[in-house]
Amino acid sequence: MEIKSNYKEEAPEAIMWSQKAWALLSTVRSQSPLIQCITNFVSMDLMANTLLSAGASPAMLHTLEELPDFTPQVHALCVNVGTLSAGWLPAMKLAAELAHKSGKPWVLDPVAAGASGFRLKACLELVELKPTVIRGNGSEIIALAKASVEPTKGVDSSHESTDAVESAKSLAQASGAIVAVSGAVDIITDGKRVVGAHNGVAMMTKITATGCSVTALIAAFISVDQSHVLEATASALSVFGIAGEMGMKMANGPASLRMHLIDSLYGIDEACVFSHAKITSLS
Amino acid sequence: MEIKSNYKEEAPEAIMWSQKAWALLSTVRSQSPLIQCITNFVSMDLMANTLLSAGASPAMLHTLEELPDFTPQVHALCVNVGTLSAGWLPAMKLAAELAHKSGKPWVLDPVAAGASGFRLKACLELVELKPTVIRGNGSEIIALAKASVEPTKGVDSSHESTDAVESAKSLAQASGAIVAVSGAVDIITDGKRVVGAHNGVAMMTKITATGCSVTALIAAFISVDQSHVLEATASALSVFGIAGEMGMKMANGPASLRMHLIDSLYGIDEACVFSHAKITSLS
Amino acid sequence: MEIKSNYKEEAPEAIMWSQKAWALLSTVRSQSPLIQCITNFVSMDLMANTLLSAGASPAMLHTLEELPDFTPQVHALCVNVGTLSAGWLPAMKLAAELAHKSGKPWVLDPVAAGASGFRLKACLELVELKPTVIRGNGSEIIALAKASVEPTKGVDSSHESTDAVESAKSLAQASGAIVAVSGAVDIITDGKRVVGAHNGVAMMTKITATGCSVTALIAAFISVDQSHVLEATASALSVFGIAGEMGMKMANGPASLRMHLIDSLYGIDEACVFSHAKITSLS
Repeated sequence: MEIKSNYKEEAPEAIMWSQKAWALLSTVRSQSPLIQCITNFVSMDLMANTLLSAGASPAMLHTLEELPDFTPQVHALCVNVGTLSAGWLPAMKLAAELAHKSGKPWVLDPVAAGASGFRLKACLELVELKPTVIRGNGSEIIALAKASVEPTKGVDSSHESTDAVESAKSLAQASGAIVAVSGAVDIITDGKRVVGAHNGVAMMTKITATGCSVTALIAAFISVDQSHVLEATASALSVFGIAGEMGMKMANGPASLRMHLIDSLYGIDEACVFSHAKITSLS
Repeated sequence: MEIKSNYKEEAPEAIMWSQKAWALLSTVRSQSPLIQCITNFVSMDLMANTLLSAGASPAMLHTLEELPDFTPQVHALCVNVGTLSAGWLPAMKLAAELAHKSGKPWVLDPVAAGASGFRLKACLELVELKPTVIRGNGSEIIALAKASVEPTKGVDSSHESTDAVESAKSLAQASGAIVAVSGAVDIITDGKRVVGAHNGVAMMTKITATGCSVTALIAAFISVDQSHVLEATASALSVFGIAGEMGMKMANGPASLRMHLIDSLYGIDEACVFSHAKITSLS
Repeated sequence: MEIKSNYKEEAPEAIMWSQKAWALLSTVRSQSPLIQCITNFVSMDLMANTLLSAGASPAMLHTLEELPDFTPQVHALCVNVGTLSAGWLPAMKLAAELAHKSGKPWVLDPVAAGASGFRLKACLELVELKPTVIRGNGSEIIALAKASVEPTKGVDSSHESTDAVESAKSLAQASGAIVAVSGAVDIITDGKRVVGAHNGVAMMTKITATGCSVTALIAAFISVDQSHVLEATASALSVFGIAGEMGMKMANGPASLRMHLIDSLYGIDEACVFSHAKITSLS
């Protein structure tokens, strides 16, 4: 497979994607889906604010005892292993099982999957529980696909997303999940089809938890259209990237970008989605 | 009881309330009370910054082993069950007991009280430990008053504060606490008297942890005037709402509102309190 | 020892310090060291964003099971006891031991060291594990040096940094660590030599986790020059203070200062370091 770096703008496809992205964002805003997040301590604030700004309703509940009552009522679940511990892992697994049994989509963010044997094993066990979407950076997706621990740069990627396309396809085929790889171009695949979302700005990697937050946004988008998970995943990545592009126009650095990104996500309108969205078929 | 939506401005009452609110804020600023917060992971950052901006001194200590040494020295305690777990609950209870025994006021924020049987039970056990104030949204106060689990929207309310007035009065009478219900109008009651605080802007509900943070601010306000808890609670809600109104003038969305709200809370002066505070007797 | 409040600007010394501070920041930016943080829940967001803005790569990993794989690979470790618990303490200790054994520098932030017997004991046990740097406020350093529990104001200091100079020197001599005391003037000592970093603005104390964050920045700076730990510590404190001074020019309160501080840390250039850095020998 070859990544077309100069993708040609096929007018009908581009319009279809913009329509899809806008329709999904509008639906999230009108339905305000309840998204349960079992996530790391670093990302909770930005993740909750990302969901609220997009119109969804976040709930950070992680306690084993509550899951049987709560998880079946949510519209989607987001599991993020960033500050993984032996204490939290059983809740992540039980929530994933409950979501799966209730027919609710759930998304896995395998943060720093290759950073330790303990973490890789936990991630692989979570993959067994049938996530609807797995989103990570290049290094994380490669570690999962190869099931291997390797020297990593912690939570930051040492691989480009485009290096991870084959790994993403294998992981998608093996797991049945849609796999998304964040990077300069976000890659989304079901194991055969590969789509690229070309939005976002480089400075977003200098803000902690932007990756975690877009994973939660994917959970919100797929919760309102479970029959088009690949499209919803690509749309969430594009919309978040557009918010970053809009925010960048007003930013003086990572902290003001973070603020303007969230404001932009809240204010983004149809014209903005149509003029900025860049989603293309890569194969 | 009927909520007067067009409350008439009784000049002497309005002035009394503004004086009260300003006097309390000034005292918090000059005394810098030490407020212990055992709170959820999502809210810690904004809660600490809210307290600092108001002039109080926050301390996020939750460890069982430290409470006997530490809690008796604080000026007030704030317990928030947002990311409740079986591991944290004993510390919440012990801190509440220590505060009560030491004659220090404590405030309970029963986040998502009706979301699970485990959570509701925990909240009811905490109510038994004599909180000075209970602050929640409409759904939370109704769940506590009825002691019932019901389908909820997670941490967001599916009830208006005004729907919860009777529940708030019952809960206040049963528990001995001042009960506050956040909403478009904040309701504060001791079980008989009902007061409304009419400040704030709708967009504050699009920022995570604003409810949690105003609960901590209530703790700071009641710590400096334990003999007028209802008035201090209404004043804290009004002052936080005023900061939101001032912040809203400069905001472009939820994230900039969050920043300007905290800046405004830090900078709010006497003239501002007198021109903005809207606290009225509702019964 | 006397603090010279009107320190005389010795041109060669001033230039040497500015060169040092700029060289270290530039190296952090180019090498992007991986900094493991085992820190409190309140500070995780700002700490990660501080490290990212300075060019380092943060990793908030705290799980015992992962440390043997992960800690030996990092470039430095930051341990902060802010929301200490019996559950986290073993990981803090193991990570410190692994860092020490691997020849990686590690920094201890003994938040509220004197707030309880449990906490003081934990901090003293961590000091035994040979931190490269210990950074706290005046009250924390005095508590550690006296190894005695006394009434404190929670996490805020009731001592000026200059009150703690003798305690800092004793602690440095006893522990072998460089000891830094934050305050209006930041004091840095190896037990004999005492250096002052005179940057920063008072409003930084009204933002939660600024102290925690500068400790992490110290970890990043010492990771790129392990042979000049005192100089790297003073440089990190000065650079963070300069970012605060630059941010203050655009700030309207603590929340906008927080944003502009991080933006400024990201954007700070050589001219800015040379015109603002104020580091002097105090003895």
